[in-house]
Amino acid sequence: MTIDINGDRLKRSMRQQAAIGMTANGGLDRLALTDADREVRDWFRSEMTNAGLDVRVDEMGNMFGRRSGTNPDAGTMLVGSHLDSQPNGGIYDGPLGVLGALELVRSLNDHSIETEHPVEIVNWTNEEGSRFQPAMMSSGVWAGEIPIEDAYETRDDAGRRFKDELERIGYRGEVPAEPQYEYDAALELHIEQGPFLDEEDRDVGIVTGIVGLRWGEVTFHGEANHTGTTPMHYRSDALLAATDVIGQIRRIPSTLGERTVGTTGSIEVDPDSINIIPETARFTFDLRDPDDEVADEAVERALHEIESAAEREGVSYEYEQRMHAESVTFPQRCVNAVRSAVDDLDYDGRELVSGAGHDATYMASVCDTAMVFAVSEDGKSHTPEEYTSWPDCYAAANTLANAALNVAGVANLGEVDV
Amino acid sequence: MTIDINGDRLKRSMRQQAAIGMTANGGLDRLALTDADREVRDWFRSEMTNAGLDVRVDEMGNMFGRRSGTNPDAGTMLVGSHLDSQPNGGIYDGPLGVLGALELVRSLNDHSIETEHPVEIVNWTNEEGSRFQPAMMSSGVWAGEIPIEDAYETRDDAGRRFKDELERIGYRGEVPAEPQYEYDAALELHIEQGPFLDEEDRDVGIVTGIVGLRWGEVTFHGEANHTGTTPMHYRSDALLAATDVIGQIRRIPSTLGERTVGTTGSIEVDPDSINIIPETARFTFDLRDPDDEVADEAVERALHEIESAAEREGVSYEYEQRMHAESVTFPQRCVNAVRSAVDDLDYDGRELVSGAGHDATYMASVCDTAMVFAVSEDGKSHTPEEYTSWPDCYAAANTLANAALNVAGVANLGEVDV
Repeated sequence: MTIDINGDRLKRSMRQQAAIGMTANGGLDRLALTDADREVRDWFRSEMTNAGLDVRVDEMGNMFGRRSGTNPDAGTMLVGSHLDSQPNGGIYDGPLGVLGALELVRSLNDHSIETEHPVEIVNWTNEEGSRFQPAMMSSGVWAGEIPIEDAYETRDDAGRRFKDELERIGYRGEVPAEPQYEYDAALELHIEQGPFLDEEDRDVGIVTGIVGLRWGEVTFHGEANHTGTTPMHYRSDALLAATDVIGQIRRIPSTLGERTVGTTGSIEVDPDSINIIPETARFTFDLRDPDDEVADEAVERALHEIESAAEREGVSYEYEQRMHAESVTFPQRCVNAVRSAVDDLDYDGRELVSGAGHDATYMASVCDTAMVFAVSEDGKSHTPEEYTSWPDCYAAANTLANAALNVAGVANLGEVDV
Repeated sequence: MTIDINGDRLKRSMRQQAAIGMTANGGLDRLALTDADREVRDWFRSEMTNAGLDVRVDEMGNMFGRRSGTNPDAGTMLVGSHLDSQPNGGIYDGPLGVLGALELVRSLNDHSIETEHPVEIVNWTNEEGSRFQPAMMSSGVWAGEIPIEDAYETRDDAGRRFKDELERIGYRGEVPAEPQYEYDAALELHIEQGPFLDEEDRDVGIVTGIVGLRWGEVTFHGEANHTGTTPMHYRSDALLAATDVIGQIRRIPSTLGERTVGTTGSIEVDPDSINIIPETARFTFDLRDPDDEVADEAVERALHEIESAAEREGVSYEYEQRMHAESVTFPQRCVNAVRSAVDDLDYDGRELVSGAGHDATYMASVCDTAMVFAVSEDGKSHTPEEYTSWPDCYAAANTLANAALNVAGVANLGEVDV
């Protein structure tokens, strides 16, 4: 049996949420704990209530909507994602997973289907980490991987504290930010944010895991000096050491794995003047691979390049690890639930490993988890050009609903045609 | 004949000026048109008056102190430099040339020497260009190379207008910012800001010219994308194109001339986030050579590298010329006046081309000009570590005074022993 979600209703809900914090260019600016975040939360809470869900908000502002199951001994099935966005992001990254989960519940209601396991949908607070670092903060607290005190004390660029902002928008709940039930499994629908599904013209993605991620920050210390009067061989140019390494960060992936990626996204020099040789250059790297050993090897090679460049240029350096996330391999049980849904729905699915971290990373540390990916046109995300066609939104949400049913177990078929 | 300046008095004056705007680490923070600039100007004006000079301030705040000559047909001999500093500069860059000029006048007074040519000393406004661009702004206006309206409208980072700040500190004079007399010649004493004199243990530098300078700004436009989900071959990374070129900016000099230098001092990326591939990367270059053809060739090669990098990385670019200053060759007449002074004083001098621009660049467009360089320990400047020993300050100022006498012509020997 399969159920068929209501694609028009999903589209309507997607458009409603997209109107809250929409930018002039059709993108979304809905940073965590802003007024726009409050507004979309208020709307989502009332939608959950209208869908008959039992709503609770925890100390981190995570919003849960619970639908009972028939078996009192069965663990809860958790489904959801996040409603916050990047400062200039798109309308699909996050909301599609939250409203896909809502649509699952509404479809169960439509057809009066009872599940053996309770079903909970969730909106995780501050997944993006744009305003308050780190990303996936509140699923991390919920999973016991990030201390709540640390999260509360985090400040945005304007110096405002996470805890104060959470209270300001009225979403610091009283429920402890930890699993309130025994969780049997979790599913997250998210846009791919990569080009593979679009490139191969697939309907939907079956996510088998999440890559290992290594973030580092490097600062070279050279000597500030006059650009006109300092002969080339007298220089200790911090930026030149940095550019040597940044070039290698690009080359390292090509010497390792097919899915290895390496990037420098941030750089700054001091004094940053056209006629002064840079005294310091600070830059970041981001290295990822599905295999943790390969990711570690990539970091090793980067550190080797940092040391060589420092020696060559006569500069000193500091290295700081900014993040280390082990890869996640989703258990076969949950991946199979997604694969069966894809097969049952006659979709053209493709297995892939997520290149991005998701709240599913932390859900997976609490219970068996898997993910469904929706097609991202040209793989674009974190930009207003991020796009998933309505048919692709529908296919992914339909896959999510049927995979959830595979896991949650149908106790009462209600009105569904079998 | 030679005259001997008063080294102790010069040292005392240098210390007095250094106390105005001195930083905790012994450097100088005396940006143009700040309160510290006003204070040092007030002090300098009273020192000029005390030295019997006829003081005038022009519309750009340039301060002149005039001492009459004996020959009514003789053009004026101009001697001076600047009192403003970099935000975290040293105490010698600029002031040594202004107070060396003051010491010349005081020494003439000490010995009751009359010169055939009138002697003027000058403090040029905003030589550094740290707060208001461009550098050497007010000698540039005086020489007719920079329109005064453009200079007046320049704003600092806080949006304050040059003209308003000049009025605020009370130094917008009424004298037009243009040569008020016929100028016969000009001399500027400045620290070398390079290592050549120190490295060869010389007493003083005989400057034969100023290198040609080319400044450019390049912006690469790529595509912002997720660092984790975007395969390497899908990327158009603006920063990678930039780092390729920055590495070449370093290598170009080694393929051209002995004195060619190339630097990137400023870079910024957008969005500047650890997990977003840079969409734009903007950076500067600074290329110099004593030979303008070589400097032009260096720019040609840089442009070629920019084009290659853009093609390789699949990004577009904009290039903007930021400054183009032709090299200056000082006329033999003035260089000889300095060389003779060095010989007469039995100093160990060395001829060199200045790698930095100076107010002398613009003075040279009005009249015959030359420069004297003082030793810079380790070639350091634009840093609190900038250092010239008192004996080296004395040697350079003594050279300046005697070179000036060679040019200005002694009409009355006064009390000097010959």
